[in-house]
Order: sequence, then structure tokens, then C-alpha cells
Amino acid sequence: MTLTASQREFLDQPAYLRLATLMPDGSPQITVLWYRLDGEELHVVCPESAQKVVNLDNDPRVSAVVEAPSDPYKYIELRGTCEAVRDDGLARQDLRKIAERYIGDRSSEFVDGLSNDPRVLLRITPTKVRSYG
Amino acid sequence: MTLTASQREFLDQPAYLRLATLMPDGSPQITVLWYRLDGEELHVVCPESAQKVVNLDNDPRVSAVVEAPSDPYKYIELRGTCEAVRDDGLARQDLRKIAERYIGDRSSEFVDGLSNDPRVLLRITPTKVRSYG
Repeated sequence: MTLTASQREFLDQPAYLRLATLMPDGSPQITVLWYRLDGEELHVVCPESAQKVVNLDNDPRVSAVVEAPSDPYKYIELRGTCEAVRDDGLARQDLRKIAERYIGDRSSEFVDGLSNDPRVLLRITPTKVRSYG
Repeated sequence: MTLTASQREFLDQPAYLRLATLMPDGSPQITVLWYRLDGEELHVVCPESAQKVVNLDNDPRVSAVVEAPSDPYKYIELRGTCEAVRDDGLARQDLRKIAERYIGDRSSEFVDGLSNDPRVLLRITPTKVRSYG
């Protein structure tokens, strides 16, 4: 699917993303994350050891919510799938771009200061988008 | 399970709740809601026609995230189950208390102005709580 211009504008704000994945028993889990829009995908980076990576390997179906920073009742829900790409170099490179949205010039310092735990790039592909508020 | 004093204090803030339920096909859905803490439960009110009510009838497992209003990276995730109580009077009565947390004195006016669509009280019972940040 293709995001509309107003959806892209909304998602370009440095808001936070709430990502729901499915635990191995099928129950939902939510984490709060930084993200960036890349074409028609949303990119997120997390440690390979995170529970959501285990969850995504098992079932790639996700829901993601991004709210307007000024009003949480204005939000977009994106449903679709998410692929966990195990490429530490690629993930850290993407994280520099992601962090720049939130902390600007301090992005490189932030990424350089991270632990050596391998990072994973999560590529979210929305198949259904709903806007509220 | 019993919430700790600091978890209760955190949840007493008029923050927003992100509720993940399971669609009939097992995929996750998230909505953003007002809530209030009632003993060891979280209460939410929504129209009976909402997709999440269909979802909860099918599978009561949920995840809920509440973030600190000043910093979304400080958050609590509560996992457990949620019961949808179909009692319009009870739901509207609870909604007055919920809305009061967010809009104070304008709560009654807000609830009185709602449509006649039956409301449902969602009672979330956490079985696992994790704090971040």
C-alpha cells in the first residue's frame, strides 16, 4: 500500500512509536520506540536480545501506533508485518538517522556510546492504515 | 497480582493508555484511550460497537502501555486479560470518573453529550507488570 501525503507528514514528526508484537503464546506485547519513515516502511532498531525479535521470528504480524506529540487522541494505527534484519552494521547506520530525528547533532555520540550487543533493524511494512482524531 | 506503591503513583497520572487486543485472526490491534485505576484493575469505557469489544469476546488477552506524560520512554507495560462488561449505565457512571482525571469539571458535560450508542466497561486485570526508563 501507499501512504498518503498527510499520513507521511504526520509520521515525519519526531513522535514515538508503540509497537505490538505477538508473544510465542499469541498474547500481545507492546514496546515504545523511536522510528523513522523510509519510503513506505517504518524503521526501528533494537538489541537482538529483545523479546520482540523472538516474537517477530515466530509471527511477523504487528500493529504500530504513532500519536501527535501535542494530542495523543490524534493518532495513526498501522497494521502489517515486520521483518527483523540481523545486520549490526546496517542497524547502527540506520539508528544514526533515526536518532537524528529526536536528538539532532547528538545522534552520533549516542550511537557510538551504545553497548556492543548486536543490533537488529526492524522493517515494518504497513498493509492497513487508520487515522483517528 | 498487587501493584506496588510507585506503580500506582505512576498510573494515577492522567496519561493515556495504549491497549493492544487480538483481532479474530490473532493479529494485534492498538487503540489509545483514557483510563483510571480502580483497585488492582484499570477501567476503560468504549462504544459496544468497537472492534476491540469483538476482539475481547474472542480472546481476552491484552497488553496496555502507560507512558509518563513528560517522557514516553518512561513507561509501564501491563499484560493480562480484559473483560468487556455490557452495562451502559455502569459504563457511563465509570466514564464520569475517568473523564474527570483528564478534563476535571467538564466531565459531566462531556458524558452527557455522548451519543446513545451503548457503552461498555472494559476491566483490565494485569497479571504481569514491567517498568521501563
